[in-house]
Amino acid sequence: MEEIERRKQSARAWFESLRDRICAALEAIETESAFALDDPEGARAPARFQRKAWQREDGGGGVMGLLSEGRVFEKAGANVSTVFGTFSEAFAREIPGAAENPGFWASGISLVIHPRNPLVPPVHMNTRYVVTAKAWFGGGADLNPIYPQEEDTAAFHARLRRACDAHGADYYERFSAWCDKYFFNKHRSEPRGVGGIFYDYLDADWGPDFAFTRDVGLAFLDIYPQLVRRNKDRVYGEAERTHQLFRRGRYAEFNLVYDRGTRFGLMTGGNPDAVLMSLPPLASWPAPI
Amino acid sequence: MEEIERRKQSARAWFESLRDRICAALEAIETESAFALDDPEGARAPARFQRKAWQREDGGGGVMGLLSEGRVFEKAGANVSTVFGTFSEAFAREIPGAAENPGFWASGISLVIHPRNPLVPPVHMNTRYVVTAKAWFGGGADLNPIYPQEEDTAAFHARLRRACDAHGADYYERFSAWCDKYFFNKHRSEPRGVGGIFYDYLDADWGPDFAFTRDVGLAFLDIYPQLVRRNKDRVYGEAERTHQLFRRGRYAEFNLVYDRGTRFGLMTGGNPDAVLMSLPPLASWPAPI
Repeated sequence: MEEIERRKQSARAWFESLRDRICAALEAIETESAFALDDPEGARAPARFQRKAWQREDGGGGVMGLLSEGRVFEKAGANVSTVFGTFSEAFAREIPGAAENPGFWASGISLVIHPRNPLVPPVHMNTRYVVTAKAWFGGGADLNPIYPQEEDTAAFHARLRRACDAHGADYYERFSAWCDKYFFNKHRSEPRGVGGIFYDYLDADWGPDFAFTRDVGLAFLDIYPQLVRRNKDRVYGEAERTHQLFRRGRYAEFNLVYDRGTRFGLMTGGNPDAVLMSLPPLASWPAPI
Repeated sequence: MEEIERRKQSARAWFESLRDRICAALEAIETESAFALDDPEGARAPARFQRKAWQREDGGGGVMGLLSEGRVFEKAGANVSTVFGTFSEAFAREIPGAAENPGFWASGISLVIHPRNPLVPPVHMNTRYVVTAKAWFGGGADLNPIYPQEEDTAAFHARLRRACDAHGADYYERFSAWCDKYFFNKHRSEPRGVGGIFYDYLDADWGPDFAFTRDVGLAFLDIYPQLVRRNKDRVYGEAERTHQLFRRGRYAEFNLVYDRGTRFGLMTGGNPDAVLMSLPPLASWPAPI
């Protein structure tokens, strides 16, 4: 087997195993949570991820994973997709290496979590391996709290910094700045959340690049459940729920107008339900006056 | 005064007077509606439009008009904006006449109505006059029912056809086909609603083009209140409300990913609250599995 094929298979296998571990970690939190604040009788059962495979007409497909209406998580999506084919001419112009050869292969894990309690921060994590005439890793993780809390933000960043520092002295500085720049809602002139890291076109050296990408996933798996457990039983009321729905509207705006992964998915004929699993279960755009 | 200045002022004055008449028509429906089905005690007062002027840094501005949490209308936006300046280089490539001269002037009315009762169809109407090195009218109106009803769809189309037929033998055929093509959610492979008309770059002859644009507004003003009155007291339940929030999610998707007016507004530094008044007050993206 060609080396590049081995790399593709390794990357794909990693994304799938990481997905399984993250889903298990979130389900464990559901199981240990006796009830939700808005469901004091515990009528709502601990939720489980449901999976559904989908095929892409032009090559490949994925498995969409969704946990819905849980005690802790109102909606959580954990998708892995592995797609290949030929970029459309218009889209090829936006992708490195695609102008020479529009053939592509891409595999990745994509995760978005919308907790029920407005005091538990929503989060996004995605890592991917893309092969055109070039080949690279990309991804990152960023925290999108409804009510930013210094302690959570610091812990999230510190854990990602640890993953970065093990692989490149300038990684955290570069990738956290990239995250701040990328996850910025230009028309609202506001950041989407409190940052994290974002990287793309990482093609220095396959082995270390892959190891870094794995460590980003493991850092996420380590820190996010801690943030959930720290906040999930905190008391909230109607005002916090209302503000949560408002902030979720802003999150949906960013994803539909700017997000690169969403755009990649919609422009390459991905399954729209899988691509848009990131959208919040319920969101509001109240009249601004 | 130059002829083109007279035309700009006439167009702008029309859009403002049409806005006033539509707001009055919607407020009249609020007044005559004793209560909403979800508010049998009538605790909710008949709602009124609130207006707020905004200035655009690079020239012009507008008046955002919003009616919110009414008995019949959950959220209705009626904006007029008149903006001018210079297109960004990237955006100028998308606009006729802007490559030669990136200066522009644009005035228009934009209206989006999200009724509370899922059996009352949401609607969108917009007409505008744009001046670059060229000058043209554009706009249209389209119906976006949660539960399409043959009678409403037929009445809406018939009234717009009447406006079209008075101005061009092929207008209805061309502009209703354009509407179907334009208001199509490509990634979902589904139309946004049940159509109406859409036209753009209408620059045949100022007088008749302006008269047609006025008639489109008057047709809307005539037919939409009829559709509201026909349906506003029909009984609905939780299932219809749930489906309404789901369909509103699709509406938000279209506007944020594809809508030309939204894109124009966000890319030309318009007030984001005004540009995005079209977004629904509450929308859902339930897990698809």
